[in-house]
Amino acid sequence: MIKKVLIANRGEIAVRIIRACREMGIETVAVYSEADREALHTKLADEAVCIGPAPSSESYLSMDRIISATIVTGADAIHPGFGFLSENAKFAELCEQCNITFIGPDSKVIARLGNKQEARNTMVAAGVPVIPGSKEPIYDAKEGARIADEVGYPVIVKAALGGGGKGMRVANTPEEFQQSFKTAQKETQMAFGDNTMYIEHFVQHPRHIEFQILADGYGNVIHLGERDCSIQRNHQKMIEESPSVALSEELRRKMGDAAVKAAKAAGYVNAGTIEFLLEKNGNFYFMEMNTRIQVEHPVTEWVTGIDLIKEQIRIASGKKLSYAQEDVHLSGHAIECRINAENPEKGFRPSPGTITDMYLPGGKGIRIDAAIYSGYTIPPYYDSMVAKLIVWAKNRNEAIRKMQSALGEIIIEGIDTNVDYQYEILNHPDYLSGDIDIEFIEKM
Amino acid sequence: MIKKVLIANRGEIAVRIIRACREMGIETVAVYSEADREALHTKLADEAVCIGPAPSSESYLSMDRIISATIVTGADAIHPGFGFLSENAKFAELCEQCNITFIGPDSKVIARLGNKQEARNTMVAAGVPVIPGSKEPIYDAKEGARIADEVGYPVIVKAALGGGGKGMRVANTPEEFQQSFKTAQKETQMAFGDNTMYIEHFVQHPRHIEFQILADGYGNVIHLGERDCSIQRNHQKMIEESPSVALSEELRRKMGDAAVKAAKAAGYVNAGTIEFLLEKNGNFYFMEMNTRIQVEHPVTEWVTGIDLIKEQIRIASGKKLSYAQEDVHLSGHAIECRINAENPEKGFRPSPGTITDMYLPGGKGIRIDAAIYSGYTIPPYYDSMVAKLIVWAKNRNEAIRKMQSALGEIIIEGIDTNVDYQYEILNHPDYLSGDIDIEFIEKM
Repeated sequence: MIKKVLIANRGEIAVRIIRACREMGIETVAVYSEADREALHTKLADEAVCIGPAPSSESYLSMDRIISATIVTGADAIHPGFGFLSENAKFAELCEQCNITFIGPDSKVIARLGNKQEARNTMVAAGVPVIPGSKEPIYDAKEGARIADEVGYPVIVKAALGGGGKGMRVANTPEEFQQSFKTAQKETQMAFGDNTMYIEHFVQHPRHIEFQILADGYGNVIHLGERDCSIQRNHQKMIEESPSVALSEELRRKMGDAAVKAAKAAGYVNAGTIEFLLEKNGNFYFMEMNTRIQVEHPVTEWVTGIDLIKEQIRIASGKKLSYAQEDVHLSGHAIECRINAENPEKGFRPSPGTITDMYLPGGKGIRIDAAIYSGYTIPPYYDSMVAKLIVWAKNRNEAIRKMQSALGEIIIEGIDTNVDYQYEILNHPDYLSGDIDIEFIEKM
Repeated sequence: MIKKVLIANRGEIAVRIIRACREMGIETVAVYSEADREALHTKLADEAVCIGPAPSSESYLSMDRIISATIVTGADAIHPGFGFLSENAKFAELCEQCNITFIGPDSKVIARLGNKQEARNTMVAAGVPVIPGSKEPIYDAKEGARIADEVGYPVIVKAALGGGGKGMRVANTPEEFQQSFKTAQKETQMAFGDNTMYIEHFVQHPRHIEFQILADGYGNVIHLGERDCSIQRNHQKMIEESPSVALSEELRRKMGDAAVKAAKAAGYVNAGTIEFLLEKNGNFYFMEMNTRIQVEHPVTEWVTGIDLIKEQIRIASGKKLSYAQEDVHLSGHAIECRINAENPEKGFRPSPGTITDMYLPGGKGIRIDAAIYSGYTIPPYYDSMVAKLIVWAKNRNEAIRKMQSALGEIIIEGIDTNVDYQYEILNHPDYLSGDIDIEFIEKM
């Protein structure tokens, strides 16, 4: 069993990992930048090592310094959290070479899944649905029409050399296709001096649905249900929930099976997430697999009762999974709102600074994963997410009302936050009815 | 459905009720004493009415002022919380007369269960076990020995006019009985000028085990499992947990059945608690029924997922129970520590004053029901309990480690608290092994 973990991260996820370790009787080492001397993770860990100046490249992204800190403190494992080095295959490999347990999958698996084309090929080979598209370049409309029929309407015609939306057209029917293809190809020729086209099925108004999986080193893989992360701004998730109102029991089983198949095909060990796009008609497509713990893992923890960080550590220690698939039951409904130090009225500009007064709500069904305290100064160098508010209730309506109520109680003075913006979303009729897709924020 | 609730209480339970109401879309009215202008419940409610000076007799115990505040604000119901007027049959009756819904049982039921002899008679008639004892006075040792055989050894011989331990003797065997009875009777004669004795079964090293029940106005009664509240100081509970390690599935079923029978026999409607003493051999005895929500209700909420305050309000609104007995499953393990503003090193002397700095932990499996915030001044007039820390994990060992870790994170500056004392208990070998009874604190 792992005895001492160095947490190669900061903020609320570092605090989350320190707590899990302490509850498991495992010693903890925090690393911190010069800007994070007063950070909560620095204070909470058993030991803390300063690894350099504020810029991440010189501290939280510095592989050498982190490996050195691990060796100096005698830690036998590193938990990378999310972001920073968590999906860096080279870092995982370095750990392997230094005989340090990297709490995550094998470096080769990280590399394979980090390469979009290789990941897609792995999934296709395993029978996991991906967005259907032409395998070969297409040069004429007639051949294109045949492929379009194959991949299924609506389709999107794309320039092989494309970018910035140039040379792209959507066609909803075979009738539209002829014109769309010709226009797109003409534009491509003009923009790029080339007429090579690709065709892909166009996924309309999709939801972002991801499945949490756990896999041990003995071939056991289970899924822990889905998270609906459709509320995003610029591909940044803002609100996540589990379960999703869009999934029937049957669809959950189908997508869960696909997620388990994906993890097995990748030779995956530890906690991971398979992200899908889900169409209204129930078709779903593999997007990518995240080879680390996710920001939004608490919603899964609450509906399943399973502690994902502890499972990560157990798996990395060589233990078998604590749960079989039939032990996993989704109970009630959980929602997470990310609380960011930013100003939504000023283009979501980050708002670092000193928290002069703070009150965070508590009570039944309220969980707060935070890295802040009254008097703490949020440094300007890092991600603006400073807390996560997670609620649980027996159904979605009650969970929403609980979140509305809890957001209403939050007081964070001295900086700007997105709390009021989150409150608006939580009161939006489309959110309330569950009629959401990844374009929700744009359309709001 | 109830539309507006006046909360006739203060502190964390008032905050708890306000949150439940808000989540149900019910308006809230707080009442507060002059000492509680800055209290959290005063700030959180939709409306707040000052009902008088600090002493409870002139505010939180003043029936007239509370009824007036209810009528003036147009509230249609009163939630009494616990303590104060919550088990006052006269207050419940006054509500009934004023056409205000009292969120709790009928005034007659409160009166019946508040009278020890009447409560005992009700339970005996319903077949709920009570501590066996002589029904008639006993004057001689021979007759006493017959009764002692009947009630079961060990027995306690008590002076009918007794008090202060005088004229009391425990006998473990029939052999011991003769001497014990004679000594006790002689002492009684000397102390009280009377030789009338009673004999009761002596409950040795019992645990305090209580069952939460819910009953609606349609004859449906369910139990929500037990709470082990054996960790007490001077009959004040300090730590409560659910489930109890002392209960097998079979014993849980037996005691649960008895609790349901007790509630039915009393004609009980709303949430209530049946308190039992449990002997090591599995025998259990009715002590009393509490006709209100308990301080320790969160541990039951966490292992069952059921919101007890919301159920109370639904029942008082005339709804049927949301759950049948077969819907209730105990999952995982929950522990609650009461955080008191008091100094354990100075005889647990209350420690009111201003909180100059505060940090309360969060994260997975942590719930805090509190009435405090940084800068808040705890007034000297009321109960010293200012917060409850509740943890949940998949089993007792993990829950204990989580509680240890969470207690270690708490920072409350400016006043004394019992946090370190709680930490000691949570690390005591007998507590860890679950070998506890109501004498634990004395023996510690």
